[in-house]
Amino acid sequence: MGPLEFEPGLDYAHRLDEEDELASFREAFVFAEADMIYLDGNSLGRLPRRTVGRLRTAVEQEWGRDLIRGWNAGWWEASARVGEKIALLLGAGPGQVVVSDTTSINLFKLAMVALEMRAGRDRIVSDVLNFPSDLYILQGCIRLLGDSHQLHLVPSEDEMTVDQETLFDAIDERTALVTLSHVVFKSGFLYDAEAVTERAHEVGALVLWDLGHSAGVVPVELDRWDVDLAVGCTYKYLNGGPGAPAFLYVRRDLQEALSPIWGWFGQRAPFDFDLEYDRAEGIAHFLVSSPPILSTLALEPALDVVLQAGIDRIRHKSVHLTSYLIYLVETVLVPLGFVLGSPTDPAQRGSHVSIRHREGYRISQVLIEEMGVLPDFREPDNIRLGLAPLYTSFAEVWEAVDRIRRVVAERRYLRYFPGKRLGVT
Amino acid sequence: MGPLEFEPGLDYAHRLDEEDELASFREAFVFAEADMIYLDGNSLGRLPRRTVGRLRTAVEQEWGRDLIRGWNAGWWEASARVGEKIALLLGAGPGQVVVSDTTSINLFKLAMVALEMRAGRDRIVSDVLNFPSDLYILQGCIRLLGDSHQLHLVPSEDEMTVDQETLFDAIDERTALVTLSHVVFKSGFLYDAEAVTERAHEVGALVLWDLGHSAGVVPVELDRWDVDLAVGCTYKYLNGGPGAPAFLYVRRDLQEALSPIWGWFGQRAPFDFDLEYDRAEGIAHFLVSSPPILSTLALEPALDVVLQAGIDRIRHKSVHLTSYLIYLVETVLVPLGFVLGSPTDPAQRGSHVSIRHREGYRISQVLIEEMGVLPDFREPDNIRLGLAPLYTSFAEVWEAVDRIRRVVAERRYLRYFPGKRLGVT
Repeated sequence: MGPLEFEPGLDYAHRLDEEDELASFREAFVFAEADMIYLDGNSLGRLPRRTVGRLRTAVEQEWGRDLIRGWNAGWWEASARVGEKIALLLGAGPGQVVVSDTTSINLFKLAMVALEMRAGRDRIVSDVLNFPSDLYILQGCIRLLGDSHQLHLVPSEDEMTVDQETLFDAIDERTALVTLSHVVFKSGFLYDAEAVTERAHEVGALVLWDLGHSAGVVPVELDRWDVDLAVGCTYKYLNGGPGAPAFLYVRRDLQEALSPIWGWFGQRAPFDFDLEYDRAEGIAHFLVSSPPILSTLALEPALDVVLQAGIDRIRHKSVHLTSYLIYLVETVLVPLGFVLGSPTDPAQRGSHVSIRHREGYRISQVLIEEMGVLPDFREPDNIRLGLAPLYTSFAEVWEAVDRIRRVVAERRYLRYFPGKRLGVT
Repeated sequence: MGPLEFEPGLDYAHRLDEEDELASFREAFVFAEADMIYLDGNSLGRLPRRTVGRLRTAVEQEWGRDLIRGWNAGWWEASARVGEKIALLLGAGPGQVVVSDTTSINLFKLAMVALEMRAGRDRIVSDVLNFPSDLYILQGCIRLLGDSHQLHLVPSEDEMTVDQETLFDAIDERTALVTLSHVVFKSGFLYDAEAVTERAHEVGALVLWDLGHSAGVVPVELDRWDVDLAVGCTYKYLNGGPGAPAFLYVRRDLQEALSPIWGWFGQRAPFDFDLEYDRAEGIAHFLVSSPPILSTLALEPALDVVLQAGIDRIRHKSVHLTSYLIYLVETVLVPLGFVLGSPTDPAQRGSHVSIRHREGYRISQVLIEEMGVLPDFREPDNIRLGLAPLYTSFAEVWEAVDRIRRVVAERRYLRYFPGKRLGVT
């Protein structure tokens, strides 16, 4: 699908919505402000309707009435049970995914595991486009290990993509671990995870993918790609709610490796209360301690919606939505001074599109405060438009571009004086 | 208050309730099964009524309507804001407590900090009564540091208390860190935290207290006692809900130390997205990444209830309740073969009381399934009765003991065949 296949005009967008197989999934979500166009599902997914009832039950019945008995009625197993639902979206067979802690904590655990398993090697390869928290975690691991490793960040020529040849050249026999965001947070650039994993394995390195921006929106085939390790969050396209617990994946044959953090949820028989740690078999010993149950339970009906839609249909619509948006950006916004900050090739793109403008910050503020469009902004000039196939319509995409056009064409942003910056995640 | 000050009979219990200044706080909590006597608030506190509404607002308005804007309307600061409320209960001045991760993860972070700060020393002192997850974390830290440290567990002669002299003898110039549960989970034994902290400091060791079973029910004076480090959970006497996020305390002058886990919530200016970690000032850099917002917000109204009651009144009632329970145990249950598993001196006791019986497991099962009493059971023979001063009444204590008496006197437990064990936390 290229730009030429689309037509201008709102009527056309409505036609695309009529043909959209997933259009009815919009009804699975809460729309409290009917007119507001939400383009930040890549940061925090909308509230699924079913989640409202699930949380009421969890609070008022499971906690309020059942009290401690809740642990025997589904809470104890929740991390594994919800993990298996996520596994279905990641092409991971059973027993390899659990819900646990935060993405950063999980990255810490798995990066430490990888560096121990490749103890003779002193290099971690990542890129300058990776989410900074991931890089901070790796820097912390390196310090903890006595500064014995180097973190090599592959550069980006265009601040948008990483050249595969350059990356491959950086992965060599010194490399213990290659860790990247499958979809990068600023530009939406999508790695060929299978090819990168294969390259890493050629030289004996391990691979750890951060799936935060791909889980639930881009097909992931962890088993088929032979991925070693992965982490990700659940509050973006999985719609788990603010700060929802994260997940981790450890390929079955690597699960003998020891996590650096030993807690009682990873103990073989936690209720024996032995004084010595004896780790559980399988993925369980990567758990640490009591998970946030309300947030974990909230995630379950949200995942059911994604599973029901199916990742292939979601990806199909995602590519259609982002391609349509790029067509509109190129025909409507580029003439107004915008520069596309995302790859034009859909095979290199996740589900958000960046548009850059030197007045990006003020433009995004006016969109939020006056125009009923909610994108997010990333320094220095980057407006990110996240398209969530389960609830973003083609008409919303058209309307959002039209409102952006008006802000710039009418120079509305000149009236906006930067005050408090919106610190969206 | 000793056993002799009490009288037998339910009427007397009702009189104690009439005189109870905190009796009205019971109305602040949900009682879904009016007849059920809940004695497991030491594991999972009851649901505060205000929490129900707070969570609905958080879900339906903040997430459902405000969406990503929630991060600018209180979510981002929630970990610090809720932390300051907990600080009020711990005698900690501002800027030293944050809500973060789980107790075990926080223990990992702070134990690693302590071991680095006392790098020349090779010993960690704890005790055999400590919660096993705490010991597992320490064992994991030791392995991570190349098995260069020893974990010395001070024994308990009576499986209930630790002799202070024995503990003090174990703390010496080799000791890097002393880490203990302020109130131990099995027996409710309460350490003299001030004296232990002083002893540790005499020899230059650091102290890390796990306040899980004391926060919100036993007065804690972290600043006055000159405590170095502390962690704790919020789902027991703080009534934060299942798996509610934990807290950590780092004394102000130790906050320069580097946490082993570096995440973007601990970064000086996280929204600059710098590629190098530059840690935030103060306690903030002990945060890692996005906290579970729903669970964090649920905690806030729960803490307000505790703050309103006041820790001194709570402690006063707690001592009264546990002393009364021990009086009843000694007069009613000891003749039936029970052995008290908690200290008789209230100065050595938190807010739960253990009673031991060789048929403890079957007795506890019959209590739960037939008698409307919900205690918890710990291997091998330990029934724990948790008394939560904000909602446990004296009449409930009397009634619970009477039901336990009937289970044993009528040998009801003989009809119970052990099946699935209740794995309460």
